[in-house]
Amino acid sequence: MPHPLDSFFSPESIALIGASRDLEKIPGRLLSMLRRNEFPGRIYPINPNYGDIDGLKCYPSIADVGQPIDLAIVCIPARTVLGALEQCAAAGVKNAVIISSGFAEEGGDSAAMQDTIAALAKKTGMRISGPNAEGFYSEVQRVAATFSPTVEIKPEAPRLIATRRRIGIVAQSGGIGFAIYHRAKALGIALSYVVSAGNESDLGAGEFLDYMVQDSSTDVILLFIEGIRDVDKFLAAARRAAETGKPVIVTKVGRSGAGERAAASHTASMAGWSAAYDAVFAKYGFIVSNDLDEAVTIAAVLTTSPMPKGDRVAVLTVSGGAGIWGADTVSMQGLQVPELSETIQAEIRALLPSYGTARNPIDVTAQGVHSGGLQKSIDLLSVSDDVDAILVVLSLSSDTRMPFKQAELKPVIDAQHKPVVFYSYTLPSDFARKELAASGAVVLSGLTHVGVAMRQMVQRASFKLAPPAGMSAAPPCDVSAHLKSARLSEADSKALLREAGIALADEVLVTVKSALDDAIARTGFPIAMKIQSRDIPHKSEVGGVRVNIATKGEVFLAYGALLESARRHRPDAAIQGVLVSPMAKKGVEIIIGTMQDATFGPMIMVGLGGITTELFKDVIYRPAPVSATEASAMLAELKAAPLLGGFRGAAKADIPALSQLIAQVSVLATAYRDHISEIEINPVLVHPEGQGVTIVDALVVPKSR
Amino acid sequence: MPHPLDSFFSPESIALIGASRDLEKIPGRLLSMLRRNEFPGRIYPINPNYGDIDGLKCYPSIADVGQPIDLAIVCIPARTVLGALEQCAAAGVKNAVIISSGFAEEGGDSAAMQDTIAALAKKTGMRISGPNAEGFYSEVQRVAATFSPTVEIKPEAPRLIATRRRIGIVAQSGGIGFAIYHRAKALGIALSYVVSAGNESDLGAGEFLDYMVQDSSTDVILLFIEGIRDVDKFLAAARRAAETGKPVIVTKVGRSGAGERAAASHTASMAGWSAAYDAVFAKYGFIVSNDLDEAVTIAAVLTTSPMPKGDRVAVLTVSGGAGIWGADTVSMQGLQVPELSETIQAEIRALLPSYGTARNPIDVTAQGVHSGGLQKSIDLLSVSDDVDAILVVLSLSSDTRMPFKQAELKPVIDAQHKPVVFYSYTLPSDFARKELAASGAVVLSGLTHVGVAMRQMVQRASFKLAPPAGMSAAPPCDVSAHLKSARLSEADSKALLREAGIALADEVLVTVKSALDDAIARTGFPIAMKIQSRDIPHKSEVGGVRVNIATKGEVFLAYGALLESARRHRPDAAIQGVLVSPMAKKGVEIIIGTMQDATFGPMIMVGLGGITTELFKDVIYRPAPVSATEASAMLAELKAAPLLGGFRGAAKADIPALSQLIAQVSVLATAYRDHISEIEINPVLVHPEGQGVTIVDALVVPKSR
Repeated sequence: MPHPLDSFFSPESIALIGASRDLEKIPGRLLSMLRRNEFPGRIYPINPNYGDIDGLKCYPSIADVGQPIDLAIVCIPARTVLGALEQCAAAGVKNAVIISSGFAEEGGDSAAMQDTIAALAKKTGMRISGPNAEGFYSEVQRVAATFSPTVEIKPEAPRLIATRRRIGIVAQSGGIGFAIYHRAKALGIALSYVVSAGNESDLGAGEFLDYMVQDSSTDVILLFIEGIRDVDKFLAAARRAAETGKPVIVTKVGRSGAGERAAASHTASMAGWSAAYDAVFAKYGFIVSNDLDEAVTIAAVLTTSPMPKGDRVAVLTVSGGAGIWGADTVSMQGLQVPELSETIQAEIRALLPSYGTARNPIDVTAQGVHSGGLQKSIDLLSVSDDVDAILVVLSLSSDTRMPFKQAELKPVIDAQHKPVVFYSYTLPSDFARKELAASGAVVLSGLTHVGVAMRQMVQRASFKLAPPAGMSAAPPCDVSAHLKSARLSEADSKALLREAGIALADEVLVTVKSALDDAIARTGFPIAMKIQSRDIPHKSEVGGVRVNIATKGEVFLAYGALLESARRHRPDAAIQGVLVSPMAKKGVEIIIGTMQDATFGPMIMVGLGGITTELFKDVIYRPAPVSATEASAMLAELKAAPLLGGFRGAAKADIPALSQLIAQVSVLATAYRDHISEIEINPVLVHPEGQGVTIVDALVVPKSR
Repeated sequence: MPHPLDSFFSPESIALIGASRDLEKIPGRLLSMLRRNEFPGRIYPINPNYGDIDGLKCYPSIADVGQPIDLAIVCIPARTVLGALEQCAAAGVKNAVIISSGFAEEGGDSAAMQDTIAALAKKTGMRISGPNAEGFYSEVQRVAATFSPTVEIKPEAPRLIATRRRIGIVAQSGGIGFAIYHRAKALGIALSYVVSAGNESDLGAGEFLDYMVQDSSTDVILLFIEGIRDVDKFLAAARRAAETGKPVIVTKVGRSGAGERAAASHTASMAGWSAAYDAVFAKYGFIVSNDLDEAVTIAAVLTTSPMPKGDRVAVLTVSGGAGIWGADTVSMQGLQVPELSETIQAEIRALLPSYGTARNPIDVTAQGVHSGGLQKSIDLLSVSDDVDAILVVLSLSSDTRMPFKQAELKPVIDAQHKPVVFYSYTLPSDFARKELAASGAVVLSGLTHVGVAMRQMVQRASFKLAPPAGMSAAPPCDVSAHLKSARLSEADSKALLREAGIALADEVLVTVKSALDDAIARTGFPIAMKIQSRDIPHKSEVGGVRVNIATKGEVFLAYGALLESARRHRPDAAIQGVLVSPMAKKGVEIIIGTMQDATFGPMIMVGLGGITTELFKDVIYRPAPVSATEASAMLAELKAAPLLGGFRGAAKADIPALSQLIAQVSVLATAYRDHISEIEINPVLVHPEGQGVTIVDALVVPKSR
């Protein structure tokens, strides 16, 4: 399927604006890179100072080329960029990538120049990447539109290719994008494209991601972001990746205070709130990795292996200690290392010396390498129903000896029955990398990264995109009438929620003492009483809450006391009255919240209530709205999930009712995103299955206008 | 100071029993390795089949040598080893290392042979390492008593040495021990010794550790263990390491079910219970690392840097994105990346182009490399009081260009003002490693590992060995009389604790209804009542607990009901009576326990009580006994520690009283290690400061004899 960015990534002709003969300078290196990587299309160097460069005709200006140009690479001083781009647009150039720096990242006038560039793109339809970009590289079409030294051709070290599938890399930082490529290349991972987004005046990481998702030569995507600017394109691409099952490994930086501070100045991007990013990543099944080697290890596993059918791993080794370490590592990631069935143990034992073991981890011993026991064990395990993946742990440091023969190993890898992952505890030699690459295997050398990669692969294999929340299915009634004041009390908030179709207990806001009798009649005993005022957000701090009231006399006493205490603590507060509620039945204490993220809009949060939320940070976020199905999935991710599932013999909690509530709240927050800033339901008590939930306290915060 | 193992690690003469001319076989490789590594002492090959090997005179037997021999390397078939060792002992050989396999790891007769070897060592005083060992290597004395290919001399790749300090490696697995060396060598970390312990018939990992701790050429120790056999030597070495401040980085495997299973068969060691190992490691300030590259990264940082004075890190970079990633990574490890003071910011800004930033992370930009801004920023930061460590994040992949000059960088590293750590986001080139090594710097390439290493370094810098618990200071009275039955009830257990000097509330075990009045008079209302029987360990399961009883009538009713319910649920149980207790004041719910570890003996455990213990696994262990000071340190390590410190405006809990109780329980468990198997105090309620603690329930489990 054609994509609007095809002519960007696979240009037939490239103009290099600012071309130079000086190989020590970036413009000179750009031309040299393009040619050394054997770009198969036409190249038009543009520079009024030269007649030709290195045998290529050089043009004074883009207008002089007189041929169709798919891509202009712009590498001239910042102040001259806009003029050059205007000439490009006039000449019908389809795309431009601006390598030059000195725009938004400097602020002031320079930032204004960038705005003009963005406007030019919008007006003319010419697509512009950068400025302040490191360009891109296509290994498929041999387009080196970058000065990154990592794409230099080294005849003495031919490109190692071990993987049948290719990675595509999208990075907002060129330095990191090409560093990912540099490390992936060393492992023998094949590449489609690596692209750096720079300042994103027009083309952003979201649109590049979309290209990779749709590109048939890209099988696994690595994404490095500081902050997404083209949010809608990003979300559309993320959804498409999830729907088509193309894995995306994402690194998001600017998570810490210092990182955020730096991201704000660097490429002028908003790092945003990382919990919101993680929520979006989780929704679309992105694999989050905050370490470069780990991300590349995950990519290596995904580009060499089929998806595993389960989480049972066979650890196969030639060294006892290393095998135990391997088994520990995958176990600690939550994968199983099951003892093998007697049948396969007997088959493997027949291949081993007496001091080997076939239980799992399987130690074929050093002798097993020579006897063929290692290879035959892999053969057996690769077709066995006992395990879903194989981790081979051995030493691959030799420059001359190999424990495998290509004729024996390659067929097993080619069959793609299940993942076969190779880890060397010594540093792997180039020889070993090359030999195993010929069989289609990557040699990995970070054990924890391997464990994480195998766990991520297992999780990704079972990922399912949640069905849409169906905003139309549950349209809340119009709640605008409840959003007229700047602050809402608990009673106001609960009235709003009721209007939105959310079930709450029958409560009475009592404003005169004489109404207490009626209130008691409606709620029954025991009773909770809470002072209500839009000026008192924290009721308990003013002594404004009484619970477990069991007699009429106490109710009347409490009424007076609550009013008195509130007046004493907050004489200026406008008191609405006292909310009289029935005491809720026992249940698991849960907190539900919504908030608005600057990048992704409304978010829904759920966590275990009480002290644990704060102490153990056990909360899960998703972009709102969510369906009840997705809400259940959120609950299952809580560390405290067992509490809802019937912990220590307790009754199983009413998860369907809680999920339904989460979904309703998320739909409300989304529908009123322009009017509601936050909703906090804290706590909601979840009763045993079939007995529903009780909202004990709630607060809706209107958006300030 | 001389050490008994000096002649083992630094022999003046070596006999090689089983020496061979065949370089394809292990005995042949051993001799070749020894010579190629230029062992400076005398070598005596022993083999009746040769007159000489490679120009060295070969002896028919050890008895024929007629010269003092410090070390015999034994590499002959298992069945012939014992005879050879007896000849060694007769000839006065001081030490032997048995490379041969086929002993305890095979079980049966072969294991018995190993026992005989151990007995020989004990009888003759000749020290024996192995069997099934990969030997050892001394880089200091050039002793290659191993066949590991990792010690091969490669003239085409001269040894890279970047660190001023040396690591020593002790590993129970030879494969891993030499793999650690292989990776450390590639980074340029200097080595004293690497030794593999094998089956440990005589010399064990504990004694090797002790050697490294006392050895002046070893500065940082890397330890890889499956399970410690020479526990007392290990603990003495651990204490000595803690006292002298020599860092030990430890990897303990056999932590998972599968790993433990494998460790049991491999080298026949007991992996043991890893929480006990971790408790011992924590006590002695060992740095635990479960990843090879991470462990080596920590070693690299410790061998190049002084200990930091605090946790403030400056992140210095030439690439915005990479700098943010660096700042995120160290921040996520809990270190600070503070904004720099205006003074130093101004000084640094003067060195940078307009688009650089001096806030921290400090982006000197690519231009900052050429202008000298990078080096000058390091100079400034290394003497600044603003930060305690510097992390330099850059690309060191070039084969020709270096961002530093040795004349400028080396003096800063040599000054050792604070740690300066170098991370390359591209794969570092050999050229860069060599260049930086000349300045005394290691180039690291795993960012998360770097973050962990810096955090571990900061933590190690503030480690203090806890003072001894002082068993004599608090000798419990004789509690033996309470340990006569095989099982104890709560009342029995509490009586035992009281006898041991532990404060408990005044409670009454009521055996006849008529005694209830007196009991009430003693406890006062409200009251808790619990059925007591040595046959009913879980009282609530038989309806055996009533709480918050407020009236006399209820007390009498409850008494009958408790007995009735117990008889109905457990008609066979012998009932002691009903324990009548005052209801405890509110407090933070804590669990204290002791248990016996097969390797390390009595352990003390503390955790937050209630559901959180089980759900969030928030418990801390230490080897018993502990002092109150050490108990306080345990409490501070709990994730739930804030709850005791006055969470959300609550009163600060009585940590001194709780610590005192933990210490008392730990002393009791230690003093009665032969009679008490477990103690569980669950819960103990910790009241506000100055108000002590209340033990609500307790169970002492006698050791079965």
